[in-house]
Amino acid sequence: MPSEEGRVSRPELQELSERALMACGVPPEHARLAAVVLVLADCFGIHTHGVARIAEYRRRIELGGIDASASPVVAERSDTLAVVDGRNALGQVATQIALQHAMKAARRSGVAVAWVCGSNHFGPAMPYCYLAAEAGFASIVASNASTTMAPWGGREPRIGNNPLGIGVPSPAGEHVILDIAMSVAARAKLRSAAKEGSEIPSTWATDETGRPTTDPMAGLDGMLQPFGGHKGSGLSIMVDLLTGVLSGASYLSHVSSWSDDPGRPQDLGHVVLLVDVERLGPTTWMSERMTDFASIIQGCPPVDPGAPVALPGEREIRRLRQCEERGVELSSDQLTELNRIAATPAAS
Amino acid sequence: MPSEEGRVSRPELQELSERALMACGVPPEHARLAAVVLVLADCFGIHTHGVARIAEYRRRIELGGIDASASPVVAERSDTLAVVDGRNALGQVATQIALQHAMKAARRSGVAVAWVCGSNHFGPAMPYCYLAAEAGFASIVASNASTTMAPWGGREPRIGNNPLGIGVPSPAGEHVILDIAMSVAARAKLRSAAKEGSEIPSTWATDETGRPTTDPMAGLDGMLQPFGGHKGSGLSIMVDLLTGVLSGASYLSHVSSWSDDPGRPQDLGHVVLLVDVERLGPTTWMSERMTDFASIIQGCPPVDPGAPVALPGEREIRRLRQCEERGVELSSDQLTELNRIAATPAAS
Repeated sequence: MPSEEGRVSRPELQELSERALMACGVPPEHARLAAVVLVLADCFGIHTHGVARIAEYRRRIELGGIDASASPVVAERSDTLAVVDGRNALGQVATQIALQHAMKAARRSGVAVAWVCGSNHFGPAMPYCYLAAEAGFASIVASNASTTMAPWGGREPRIGNNPLGIGVPSPAGEHVILDIAMSVAARAKLRSAAKEGSEIPSTWATDETGRPTTDPMAGLDGMLQPFGGHKGSGLSIMVDLLTGVLSGASYLSHVSSWSDDPGRPQDLGHVVLLVDVERLGPTTWMSERMTDFASIIQGCPPVDPGAPVALPGEREIRRLRQCEERGVELSSDQLTELNRIAATPAAS
Repeated sequence: MPSEEGRVSRPELQELSERALMACGVPPEHARLAAVVLVLADCFGIHTHGVARIAEYRRRIELGGIDASASPVVAERSDTLAVVDGRNALGQVATQIALQHAMKAARRSGVAVAWVCGSNHFGPAMPYCYLAAEAGFASIVASNASTTMAPWGGREPRIGNNPLGIGVPSPAGEHVILDIAMSVAARAKLRSAAKEGSEIPSTWATDETGRPTTDPMAGLDGMLQPFGGHKGSGLSIMVDLLTGVLSGASYLSHVSSWSDDPGRPQDLGHVVLLVDVERLGPTTWMSERMTDFASIIQGCPPVDPGAPVALPGEREIRRLRQCEERGVELSSDQLTELNRIAATPAAS
């Protein structure tokens, strides 16, 4: 497929991203695994977690914060449970290895869990849930993160804005995938407001002392607010228990800050839980139920007649289909940067 | 232990609840299983889902909406997966049977999932997560429910205020258990405001047409709002997929309304997912990590010096410990009602 202006085909972006990662010292097979996740993020329109991150990863690799050439090690704890020690590899590499292991185990047993410790930023959860759904698995994929929020009622950053993904495959339609973090608004939105000089809603962030603020700069120096108050705070805590504590990784304030301490391994924890839905009923049964389910949600009369009700992940998967047809939209600056990285081998 | 005034010991309440359930036609072993859940709910202070519900269940049993004497059937789909057909038994009975099955399977394999279909109101998720944690299992327990909320951007009730519980055991301290539903506020809070004639925050509910309202009566006739906007709405949708769709139960608007149609089986779906944490490390390892985790959260400087930061479930488990020492606080009306039910055998 020919690339339109400002667009690059998905295979081309995959190949370029692999070369950029290899130039950072990532072995070819690991570069392939990580690039699949990064390119999927861009295809979903989650550009903050796409190939643009490679430049940031390269800086951390150069500072020793990430070990580009590390080989994650899988330790089986039973037929259905495994812990992958990422050994400070890229988070996408360690998580893809965990996902592949869990897929084999869940195909065999119906359900499997793979934890990851010793890991780094794994990107958004959606690509992993999507890959799982494509292979017929329902999934829960989550990670802990450095502390940017206070637990509900507190005034110090001691919990992370932890991503949580839940996916269910739709054999005859589009998969349904929720990918949420635990804050009302992402830090990127605060940065945009700061750039524009505009105020933010008082529900987004607090200042350093824990008081709600409408000043985006005070919010960036302070803490994000959890969505739904104690509910989002509680979910963040449970995700850290399931990913950080159970995996053997760091958790809560033991996770070092990427921005304050880029040369120190973060030792993040993730979890990948898969269920093979074929064990629950034939594909036609699942197809019919998912199609009916989707039609009930999408057929709900909308508040705004111009904004139909959507399923979780619907917008992102629609963007993916567009990317498959017309290529991925990336700025020429981003492509130049990627090409520059790919052309500059890491000092070894 | 002698009961204080207005208090009844936990074993006494268990015994009385069992007799009340048996008088409704529930077989003795099932009455025991259900009473454990109801009494735990009261001990946690979740009185809206405790033994007071028995009167309501009795009405539904008499109308044919619940089959008191039904025997749920467990179908194994693999060593680690099972689907329990509740056959319209009490939700607590079907879920306890699923929990017991999943415990055996997870002890053997490390992880197990038991779904439930053909079920009814299972109460709060916390008692199941607590029983799992006491036996050393991390758990995810959830249910779908009749539709009381609109999906985000919609203006018709097509999703449920689905309960979601997540628990992680603490071998040397108190377990950490989150139990949330998907609305900003429970319907009970709207009913209280209506009774008092006070307004409600505009974030709690919408009127029938989907517009936010501060009138509790309009809210009760309308819809609850999901917590965190699209995030709570998305979680509700994913919980219905994981509990309703995957179990083979009804889902979304196929779930009949308890209040509008009390004589019709609801065919609710639940899921119980357990991980045996002993597979991940020795008990001392888990104890140390959980104790340290708790101290980081509980040691967070609070916004209000009089309100220390708490872990999910901390308040409820503290109440349980008090109940174990001093008995469960119940009004004399409630005890009279329970005794009345226990003394009135069901027409057969």
